[in-house]
Amino acid sequence: MAQHMTTAALESLEIEVRALLESDNLEGVRKLLNKQQPPDIADVLDRLESKDRARVFELLTLDQAAEALHEMGTETIRKVFADMPKEKVGDLLDLMAMDDAAEILTQDVPERQQELLTEMQPADAAEVRDLLKYPAQSAGRLMTEKFVRIRPEMTVEETIAHLRKVDPEVETLTDLYVLNPEKQLIGVVSLREVITAPSERRLQDIMTTQLVTVPPEMDREEVARLVSRYDFLAIPVVAPDKAMLGIITVDDIIHVLVEEQTEDAMKFAAVEGGMINQPYFTISIRKVIRTRIGWLLLLFLAETLTGSVLRVFEAELEAVVALSFFIPLLIGTGGNTGAQTVSTIIRGIALKDIRLQDSWRVIRRELGSGLLIGLLLGIVAFLRTVLWGSDLRFCLVIALTILVICTWANTVGSIIPLVAQRLKIDPAVVSAPLITTLVDATGLAIYMLIAKAILGI
Amino acid sequence: MAQHMTTAALESLEIEVRALLESDNLEGVRKLLNKQQPPDIADVLDRLESKDRARVFELLTLDQAAEALHEMGTETIRKVFADMPKEKVGDLLDLMAMDDAAEILTQDVPERQQELLTEMQPADAAEVRDLLKYPAQSAGRLMTEKFVRIRPEMTVEETIAHLRKVDPEVETLTDLYVLNPEKQLIGVVSLREVITAPSERRLQDIMTTQLVTVPPEMDREEVARLVSRYDFLAIPVVAPDKAMLGIITVDDIIHVLVEEQTEDAMKFAAVEGGMINQPYFTISIRKVIRTRIGWLLLLFLAETLTGSVLRVFEAELEAVVALSFFIPLLIGTGGNTGAQTVSTIIRGIALKDIRLQDSWRVIRRELGSGLLIGLLLGIVAFLRTVLWGSDLRFCLVIALTILVICTWANTVGSIIPLVAQRLKIDPAVVSAPLITTLVDATGLAIYMLIAKAILGI
Repeated sequence: MAQHMTTAALESLEIEVRALLESDNLEGVRKLLNKQQPPDIADVLDRLESKDRARVFELLTLDQAAEALHEMGTETIRKVFADMPKEKVGDLLDLMAMDDAAEILTQDVPERQQELLTEMQPADAAEVRDLLKYPAQSAGRLMTEKFVRIRPEMTVEETIAHLRKVDPEVETLTDLYVLNPEKQLIGVVSLREVITAPSERRLQDIMTTQLVTVPPEMDREEVARLVSRYDFLAIPVVAPDKAMLGIITVDDIIHVLVEEQTEDAMKFAAVEGGMINQPYFTISIRKVIRTRIGWLLLLFLAETLTGSVLRVFEAELEAVVALSFFIPLLIGTGGNTGAQTVSTIIRGIALKDIRLQDSWRVIRRELGSGLLIGLLLGIVAFLRTVLWGSDLRFCLVIALTILVICTWANTVGSIIPLVAQRLKIDPAVVSAPLITTLVDATGLAIYMLIAKAILGI
Repeated sequence: MAQHMTTAALESLEIEVRALLESDNLEGVRKLLNKQQPPDIADVLDRLESKDRARVFELLTLDQAAEALHEMGTETIRKVFADMPKEKVGDLLDLMAMDDAAEILTQDVPERQQELLTEMQPADAAEVRDLLKYPAQSAGRLMTEKFVRIRPEMTVEETIAHLRKVDPEVETLTDLYVLNPEKQLIGVVSLREVITAPSERRLQDIMTTQLVTVPPEMDREEVARLVSRYDFLAIPVVAPDKAMLGIITVDDIIHVLVEEQTEDAMKFAAVEGGMINQPYFTISIRKVIRTRIGWLLLLFLAETLTGSVLRVFEAELEAVVALSFFIPLLIGTGGNTGAQTVSTIIRGIALKDIRLQDSWRVIRRELGSGLLIGLLLGIVAFLRTVLWGSDLRFCLVIALTILVICTWANTVGSIIPLVAQRLKIDPAVVSAPLITTLVDATGLAIYMLIAKAILGI
């Protein structure tokens, strides 16, 4: 019984392939890969060097190659395509699901899109062109036209006979879609309902007419939330005139969820998008720098504000040098508190727990918890600085600053995502790093003003 | 045609329910909720106040209530259960999928687990007890025993006849599982293959025997990765003796992905777990503080290290007060650079792009890109401080510190997740905040040493 691939198993598969290549045993490689699943074949190809990759790719059957292609990283796909006559690339694309082919043509080899479309079968190329009419990242791009179409007057028996002849490319048989002569979707019936109904029943009598559908322009992340919220295995895409355009299957939804997860995690750490579908080692250092330097520069320039704030208080810092010892501690605590709040609010917005009407409730709540957290941390800070042997008034400065900074960071950390939501900007983009910078500069001003007042400098 | 619920539609559903409750029109509420999907009903219940919630819950049919229950937040479930005779709670649990019932009994009302199990039907309670034998967060906890069992010698015709009589509670008919008399899994056949095969063919001749299965102890996150990697709709869970224990369906997998995503985002922002399945407003402030204060305290205490480092250089800071102006800028840049690297490496490990054997390659790569980023930012920092009118030697101190800190932060940011991976600790836990603290203290020491050397103080 074949087991799935653990990381260790993937490592040893790679080592085995390399050893067989070393000894020029190409037949051994072919036999070994024949037993593997497409994502694991893709994984090996992603990790081989150019020359070996071309040799291994040659060994795959067209079907295997087409299935592995969709799972490969952008750089690997580009190189594999470059090494191949374009007629063969066309054949490979023809064998793929058309939504996957469309994704490769826009995401991985955009500059060869037109050229490769002309190498595909006219019907397939037409389907891809249809998909490409919809905006990037939209429901339309994820659709497949390969679903089961049934007429409402068909009986269960006729339906089962029809299913036996259905195009083997049809991706899923779980749900059957009932269309009227105008190709509008009027009902859905599950294969299970068909199987368990009496054979002379008509589909119009057993189909569900309470339908959940999406328009082709809907953002794919929204579609993913919908499918995961309602536990669908597929969701129909319907035009404004109710004409049925296609379905989106749950496997595409899972890919969207995983990709968006990567994108969000990267955004949160201020790494720019565009790294999706690119395994770590396949990205050139040049591209790495490009995706990282923009945000770092912006944050660097924003953070110079802290220098300007401190300059204003040069006299105070000169008078009590010990004030500078606490700068990293105070702004660090503000940053951490703010980051917690931002993450909580962003998730709440994403899961629809927090809505526009809730803004004031959210701000009041975060202000309250910021005050409590500030109080607790302030007490700890007071004791810690007393232990350090600092002057009591100085300890009071630190404790009070912690209290105010935590309250402030929590409030700012809730306001910024809420404002982003209202302006329809992705809250994850205006995320933690930006808030940190903002809280840093204001936090320092708060610190210095409190110190001035209490220490009388 | 019913449209799905946008955030705005959810808001207006809530407002409509509240208005009907206000005018005591309970029949109106019942009619309105009858048209809604379970997650949307759960959403309304999560947001109502206790008294109204009890009134609305009363209006639901047992089936509706059981379906909505699984989607409700922990606090809502606890209050609904507390307001109800325990016999009725037992009835509700009996109507749910047993993996969902088990989740509620362990996650939402753990202290009433034994009491409520005795209120359930003996067969259902026994199934829940079976599930609870497996570790929390394991594959075993997600299983359902409601799958279609087929014998290998059955013909296609017999199979279809069998399917017509199958328990309506069986969750999915997509795949049929072929068991030998010892209840061991020997093959899988899709309903599609059954439908399209000649009626006298035996299942043993059309079934797939190349099976991907998981053991019941496997971590649920690992199962989710597997299912999303290979595009399965369900995966069989098999004991070491190959006895088939149950299946995990893709809807559970999606829930795991979404929950783990929440958990990871929270971990990254140093918020402790245990907030899963708890809509924002249902969490008490006390609990909010509890989940946040632990990490904040730990980070606060770790960050006091920066104070100790700066104290060592009191004389230098006294001699050149301007040195303190750049403290937030320098440690901020180090923190941002480190956070980018950590996120990249954590994702690479999660997606299996980065494996144990790759450690040195990763560190070399990150050291290199850190050096390049440091060089670019260093040049900008030099120009920025020159513009500010600082002394040229001082500008050099800042630029050089940026160069060294970026390289250092990138290296530390790659080493820490790799070490965590080797020690089998979740890399997301030892994440950005911890690294920031570490990079902060060492970064300050680097800064002061460079200043001392170049400025000769």
